[in-house]
Amino acid sequence: MSRRGLERAPCPIARTTGLVGDAWTLLLLRNVSFGQRRFGALQRALGAPRASLSRRLARLVEEGLLERRRYQDRPPRYEYHLTDKGRAFFDVLAAMWRWGEDWLFGERSAEVALVDRRTGRPVRPIVVDEETRAPLALGDVRARFGRANA
Amino acid sequence: MSRRGLERAPCPIARTTGLVGDAWTLLLLRNVSFGQRRFGALQRALGAPRASLSRRLARLVEEGLLERRRYQDRPPRYEYHLTDKGRAFFDVLAAMWRWGEDWLFGERSAEVALVDRRTGRPVRPIVVDEETRAPLALGDVRARFGRANA
Repeated sequence: MSRRGLERAPCPIARTTGLVGDAWTLLLLRNVSFGQRRFGALQRALGAPRASLSRRLARLVEEGLLERRRYQDRPPRYEYHLTDKGRAFFDVLAAMWRWGEDWLFGERSAEVALVDRRTGRPVRPIVVDEETRAPLALGDVRARFGRANA
Repeated sequence: MSRRGLERAPCPIARTTGLVGDAWTLLLLRNVSFGQRRFGALQRALGAPRASLSRRLARLVEEGLLERRRYQDRPPRYEYHLTDKGRAFFDVLAAMWRWGEDWLFGERSAEVALVDRRTGRPVRPIVVDEETRAPLALGDVRARFGRANA
């Protein structure tokens, strides 16, 4: 299945994968989400080839997750800001954070904590059913073909 | 930053990205999570080259998300089952599902719904703060270096 195939898939996980199923793209979204907005800083932080980052940033702009704003005229320099769509993607990053912290650090906790911006209290994201607010377990759900609002 | 670099990163999002920041890996986890466990079926469903799938499945077994079980002897055939670690990863897939459904389908809802296995009620995953059960917004949190339980 090609990337373009994924974008037309009936399954939301497949479509999301077509857009962000790539390491640099996920790291770019992480860094921009935590306030690193300038191309040069992103490039230094991630150590990725410039062309790879440019291409991914352009795609994220095209898909409406990021907005490019000029912050300097000579030479022209740009920053990348999250749109509402890009900001909403933080849910996926938060779920990745939680899973990574639970399963990829052994006995020690991660060296970066997610904290409440005002109080400094550590925040632990979990995924729940919106209606019941109960944790969502794979065993409780299944995928059903057909539109929910058809 | 190399894949191996990501695996040792202090940030849980980076480590998770090092492991699953790849389209085929995410789709394999999705399909196994929804009950498609055999190599042949996975290969037909995803249309990925056999070698690409084998390599990714082997990595997921090595990293403890999947367990390989022989279900036929001659010729030997294997199925892949989720471990607890792999089952917990459903949170990330669920967050991707929700974001994809909210942002990648335009006016229509997705053609695959996530429903409660017993009642058939559509389930909408959201990411909340474990303590308060309030939706988690990017603007409310920041990343802080230093172990939470140091």
